[in-house]
Amino acid sequence: MKPITLKDIAEILGISVTTVSKALKDYPDVSKKTKRLVRETAETLNYKPNAFAVNLRTSESKTIGIIIPEVVHHFFSSVLKGIVAQAEKKGYLVIILQSNESYELEKKQIDLLLNKRVDGILMSLANGTIHFDHLDEILISETPLVLFDKIAKVVQCSKVIINDRKAAYNATKHLIESGCKKIAHFRGPLLPQNSIDRFLGYKSALLEHGMNYDPSLVYILNDMSFEEGVHFSKELLKDHKDVDGVFINTDLVAIGAISEFNKQGIAIPNDIKIVGFSNWFMSSVITPTLSTIDQPGYEMGKVAFKLLYKEIKQKKKKIPVTFKTVELPTNLVIRESSIAEKIN
Amino acid sequence: MKPITLKDIAEILGISVTTVSKALKDYPDVSKKTKRLVRETAETLNYKPNAFAVNLRTSESKTIGIIIPEVVHHFFSSVLKGIVAQAEKKGYLVIILQSNESYELEKKQIDLLLNKRVDGILMSLANGTIHFDHLDEILISETPLVLFDKIAKVVQCSKVIINDRKAAYNATKHLIESGCKKIAHFRGPLLPQNSIDRFLGYKSALLEHGMNYDPSLVYILNDMSFEEGVHFSKELLKDHKDVDGVFINTDLVAIGAISEFNKQGIAIPNDIKIVGFSNWFMSSVITPTLSTIDQPGYEMGKVAFKLLYKEIKQKKKKIPVTFKTVELPTNLVIRESSIAEKIN
Repeated sequence: MKPITLKDIAEILGISVTTVSKALKDYPDVSKKTKRLVRETAETLNYKPNAFAVNLRTSESKTIGIIIPEVVHHFFSSVLKGIVAQAEKKGYLVIILQSNESYELEKKQIDLLLNKRVDGILMSLANGTIHFDHLDEILISETPLVLFDKIAKVVQCSKVIINDRKAAYNATKHLIESGCKKIAHFRGPLLPQNSIDRFLGYKSALLEHGMNYDPSLVYILNDMSFEEGVHFSKELLKDHKDVDGVFINTDLVAIGAISEFNKQGIAIPNDIKIVGFSNWFMSSVITPTLSTIDQPGYEMGKVAFKLLYKEIKQKKKKIPVTFKTVELPTNLVIRESSIAEKIN
Repeated sequence: MKPITLKDIAEILGISVTTVSKALKDYPDVSKKTKRLVRETAETLNYKPNAFAVNLRTSESKTIGIIIPEVVHHFFSSVLKGIVAQAEKKGYLVIILQSNESYELEKKQIDLLLNKRVDGILMSLANGTIHFDHLDEILISETPLVLFDKIAKVVQCSKVIINDRKAAYNATKHLIESGCKKIAHFRGPLLPQNSIDRFLGYKSALLEHGMNYDPSLVYILNDMSFEEGVHFSKELLKDHKDVDGVFINTDLVAIGAISEFNKQGIAIPNDIKIVGFSNWFMSSVITPTLSTIDQPGYEMGKVAFKLLYKEIKQKKKKIPVTFKTVELPTNLVIRESSIAEKIN
């Protein structure tokens, strides 16, 4: 079959060859709509001389992609807010994709974003992600990538994280100092680094304070929902009648636990003390208010975008990029659910 | 020279782009006279449906786009869950875009999605959207479009809605029947249809029950945040010491109100009764639990995707699409915040 020429595209669309070539080179004096028509026709007819490809690689789409495990998660929600706020300041459109904690979907979504020629990608990895070859694809395509929250240490890119282990250590230490003798832990799934680190923080806090570590006090959650908080609180009370403290992987689950303890007439903090993780705004609204680790989601989104933006600009100017890892501070917020004496 | 578009023909004849497109496709719901006019004009202007559009109609990207005002909104979150769940079953990738209630951004995002050749678009309109020409763009490109929740009646496409007016009427009626004599309303911004309809439902419930309507009892909110719930509750208590009921546009705001009333030692429901809107899961967790209108967000997302999917398939088979409007039922969920006698 004879190769498609600019002339073919021009004829199909009823516009001049010059306009077609200008559209493909992203000239400002061609309307968005015409550019769209030309590009799509070119793609449909499979027209791609090198010049075209080269141009597309150097032209900015002013679009970035975000892949997160769950959009509807209150922590990722605040991260999104932070990213979108920054992105708009710089005039970027933000494409949001939800991996549902699935490695397979994550792979497809990376292909999608690379096909759509986004200028950069922000990602928090799915729990199901153990191989990172799909991330290499991003790096090979020379698309800037920044990982946040759920990261993989081995991947060569910039990262925004918190010190999950230290934060969990402080949360557990606080429960011990509030007088808890038997402290349970509702942890996240086995794989993701942050749920491993939080578990290790819990464990080392116990051991360093001369308490013994009992694996039967550690409950492994799956989707970390409100419902799981209710369910595992029931389990905990069945298995360990004398439990007097629990450190919970995330506030949503902790709020499920609080509602179940309230329902069963178990006094918080007198009978059992609770510390959550993330400082979701609802933690200060429920009864009793929930002690938690303040995890700076909005800030994390802001910083992640700023790192990405810098790399996009550096790439454009052909300045070699040096990867950064930014660790954001967390802090323990003490509320009614964990104080030694109950107020109100 | 730019190619003649359906829009050009529509402008010349002073009819909608959809009508032009339908006339050319010989849809039954367009009059013979209009069809003749359109065909003649098309011939005179030498209108040629372009090749890529024909190609597009058969090439699927297996990707759909969603544009919603706010991702981080608990109602839209559940709609998203419903959409994504269905989309995955059918093997579609979902691109999510957040309009931040901005008409300008919404326009850009539609361009982006058409540019990325999505198979269909699901939208809930921004509060700032008063013109709908950007939606015509979608119809011109023959990309299936389904509007949900915040819709525009004039746009010719399928829609998924609830009866906001009826739901608000029932919420207010319930407050009256629970003995409220002076009922305030925290409403949404002036523009969007759903906040207008909820206000009208509130007003007609008052009038039909022989209560007088006092505009000073209606507070117009902007971002409908938890913080606005706190703020306007303070205002309400300052302006109307004797208020004994309030119907609030959305649960998040209602929960802000509850926390402020609790803080000020105002007994709910004894001193003031509250009904919210949307039935966010937190409504049944806070103290006191919040009466609300159950708005089937997840279901709305499911139905919206199913309608879109059907249109995508019909388009592929070149079957003319007939637009549907699906109205989902809502119901009043009575909890502690509005009962005549306070329990526990």
